[in-house]
Amino acid sequence: MSNFPLVRTIRFKNVNAPGILGKITTAIGNTGTIIGNISTVHLGNRYVIRDLDVFIEGKPHLSRVLRELIKIPEIKIVEIRDAVLELHKNGLIGVVPTKRIDSLEDIRKLYFPGSREVCTLLQENDHWKNTYTSVPYNIAVVTNGSSVFDFKSREPIVAMPVIEAKAALLNKLSGVNGYPVLLDAFDIKTFVEGIRRVASGYSGIHLSNISSAYCFDIMDVLEEELRIPVIHDDQQGNATVVIAALINAARFCHFDVHSAKVGVIGLGVTGLGIARFIHAYTGNPVWGTTRSEISARRHEADGGMITSLEEIMSKADIVIATTSKGQVISPEMVRPGQVIFALSQPEPEIDPEAAMAAGSCLAINSKAINNLLCCPGLWRGTLDSQAQTINFPMYVAAAQAIAQSATEGEILPTTLDSRVHYAVTHAVAKAAMDTGVARRELDDAYFENTDIMKPPWM
Amino acid sequence: MSNFPLVRTIRFKNVNAPGILGKITTAIGNTGTIIGNISTVHLGNRYVIRDLDVFIEGKPHLSRVLRELIKIPEIKIVEIRDAVLELHKNGLIGVVPTKRIDSLEDIRKLYFPGSREVCTLLQENDHWKNTYTSVPYNIAVVTNGSSVFDFKSREPIVAMPVIEAKAALLNKLSGVNGYPVLLDAFDIKTFVEGIRRVASGYSGIHLSNISSAYCFDIMDVLEEELRIPVIHDDQQGNATVVIAALINAARFCHFDVHSAKVGVIGLGVTGLGIARFIHAYTGNPVWGTTRSEISARRHEADGGMITSLEEIMSKADIVIATTSKGQVISPEMVRPGQVIFALSQPEPEIDPEAAMAAGSCLAINSKAINNLLCCPGLWRGTLDSQAQTINFPMYVAAAQAIAQSATEGEILPTTLDSRVHYAVTHAVAKAAMDTGVARRELDDAYFENTDIMKPPWM
Repeated sequence: MSNFPLVRTIRFKNVNAPGILGKITTAIGNTGTIIGNISTVHLGNRYVIRDLDVFIEGKPHLSRVLRELIKIPEIKIVEIRDAVLELHKNGLIGVVPTKRIDSLEDIRKLYFPGSREVCTLLQENDHWKNTYTSVPYNIAVVTNGSSVFDFKSREPIVAMPVIEAKAALLNKLSGVNGYPVLLDAFDIKTFVEGIRRVASGYSGIHLSNISSAYCFDIMDVLEEELRIPVIHDDQQGNATVVIAALINAARFCHFDVHSAKVGVIGLGVTGLGIARFIHAYTGNPVWGTTRSEISARRHEADGGMITSLEEIMSKADIVIATTSKGQVISPEMVRPGQVIFALSQPEPEIDPEAAMAAGSCLAINSKAINNLLCCPGLWRGTLDSQAQTINFPMYVAAAQAIAQSATEGEILPTTLDSRVHYAVTHAVAKAAMDTGVARRELDDAYFENTDIMKPPWM
Repeated sequence: MSNFPLVRTIRFKNVNAPGILGKITTAIGNTGTIIGNISTVHLGNRYVIRDLDVFIEGKPHLSRVLRELIKIPEIKIVEIRDAVLELHKNGLIGVVPTKRIDSLEDIRKLYFPGSREVCTLLQENDHWKNTYTSVPYNIAVVTNGSSVFDFKSREPIVAMPVIEAKAALLNKLSGVNGYPVLLDAFDIKTFVEGIRRVASGYSGIHLSNISSAYCFDIMDVLEEELRIPVIHDDQQGNATVVIAALINAARFCHFDVHSAKVGVIGLGVTGLGIARFIHAYTGNPVWGTTRSEISARRHEADGGMITSLEEIMSKADIVIATTSKGQVISPEMVRPGQVIFALSQPEPEIDPEAAMAAGSCLAINSKAINNLLCCPGLWRGTLDSQAQTINFPMYVAAAQAIAQSATEGEILPTTLDSRVHYAVTHAVAKAAMDTGVARRELDDAYFENTDIMKPPWM
């Protein structure tokens, strides 16, 4: 699918006869447009009404598509809708009862006087929360909205659609509860203080869309002060998937990750996270380049080396670009055999096709590197094992599980393949136990069960 | 149903023959025990296995029941389980996607790159949150755990079973999202600051289980400083249901609420809330009695008068008791024709039967006065009309709707009757519009629709 951010649904009506859908899809294809879902809304004896999704860049692009469609005499365009806004109507998540409530007896057990018995247990020993509340599977998905796509904001609500999507997908893919927390806090102290106040309702903190000005420090302080695991998906989530991709790229292009020279172009939140993880994984310093003095100092403090884009392109075996800018790598700069991950969105630093044509052994863009491959299983494994932190071996275990879940010939698996999520879950839980951070012992039956991604209450 | 707080499930097996269930239920009934659900677990040709719930006070009570059951030769007791703990296993609520996620196209619309379009709208104008996020129907159910039943705690987690139950029931009865917020804050300033930090994710604050030492001040400060509606269910929730009960009691016992003399015995959170509302509703000062000097001063500051329990019993037409102590009103104290609400739990200040025998016109206990009759519709009407606050006319509208929803001869409706919830919703939304606090205009179609209690995304 294309990287075009907008999706429009075109509803059209035509006489029910063979061949017309072929004309329509051909006409759209001729404009260079990718088609998404096609669904039949009405199928009558005489005519048919269909909804067809197109991925577009903007209004001029849509106009091009429509100009081609109106040339087809057999069809009538009924309406054009915004498929993204339709889906986001009323938001993406809800808080629902997980138990049947059909009688006054149910209410008596659930609420009053029944809940008194559970509260009494919790008053005696709060470890009962792991058995009789939803807390062991509650994650706070926290943002202050300070870094949402390319706009900076001081309104947490701006990030809500992303946070709701993450919460929806966490539940869909791994059965955990993602609770959006919009935190009106824009410095380290206030942010940490805000999380500390509400932390006892959650067993993990999932940071998201937070400015690079303080996200690293917030993470450090939270990990030190809270006794629950913390992930910043833009850092560790993306970096874990990059490690997974490198593991498979090494097999594909016949290199040893541990002796390859790696360069990271662009040292924002994602780039710095990737550089740190590659350094930790390979044991070797990573080259980096950035226009930001602060980021450069941070990379050096992490043990990295600062150099130029040109030097990275001419000397590195592996290039990972996270500049937020499209087309900053020209084909002439590509070194034959080089592995290139061009991860900026919506436009990559170099198109994978152009990089391959210039002699790259393997070139991929952000569509493959998706932290949805990592976070659901990472959380489930962490929560299943009641790990008190997420340590580096757990991230590596996740990366290895992701790499192993790719089908033959692919670098990474696809997001909706449930096998990757339970593989990551098992690997992370095992790593937590092996490294002594698990507070719950899981048995062989757990690790043999592949039907573990449903919510615990199902 | 009894006020006994514990529920045990007795599983028993017997030969499949008529008459045996009669022996069992008679034997249990002879011990003075109320029976709950009976469900058939296995129905074979030769034998049947059933689960039977009993409401009990404690272990000695259960032993009495079992001693009777083992006298029945035809049955074998298989096991005894705790029905409350079984229901609370893994908690009561979950955060789930409200949209279908079946394809990569769905993920593209929901998450990346689709959510960018919605974030951009929100960046331009945050009123779009009312259309494209779940925020307009999100309520924070906030506690610090400082007042959970009769124990004081400084561990917010102790209140979690109650908070989860409230969230589950809010969604079940009125379709709103109740998000538990366990706030580690035990003074006014810290509490208000904590709520302010996370408030932008919610359209209402539902306070619960908060110590009387600061709950009144917290409510005042929150109402003044936040621009979203706040309810403290122990205050306004209970008080609204008491007003509803008084409206019907007045018809039943032929008195005029506005000229009746009212006394409140016990001025904790609930008692003070009730006294305030009755004063505001009738325009007349309310008599109160309490052992707490602080509560007495607060009641006087509200315009109430302090007197003794004896004077209230001898002179008041209506007595409302919220002392948290059982049996403090003896039958001799009851004035003929008096209306008595004895609301303490688990034991009332006087048993309704004893009060009626002593000449009370109407006596009820806490089983009837349940703030679940009020809060779901109060929230739904407030959120549907996007009211910026919940003013007294909205509470009165809720009380009148509850009163009108009672079936003939009953003082209050039952919680699971959906009619009361949409009646309250409509009444509250209308009152919000009439008093100028609604920010959304609702049309006749809304007020005629009785199928409005589902979540907005359904």
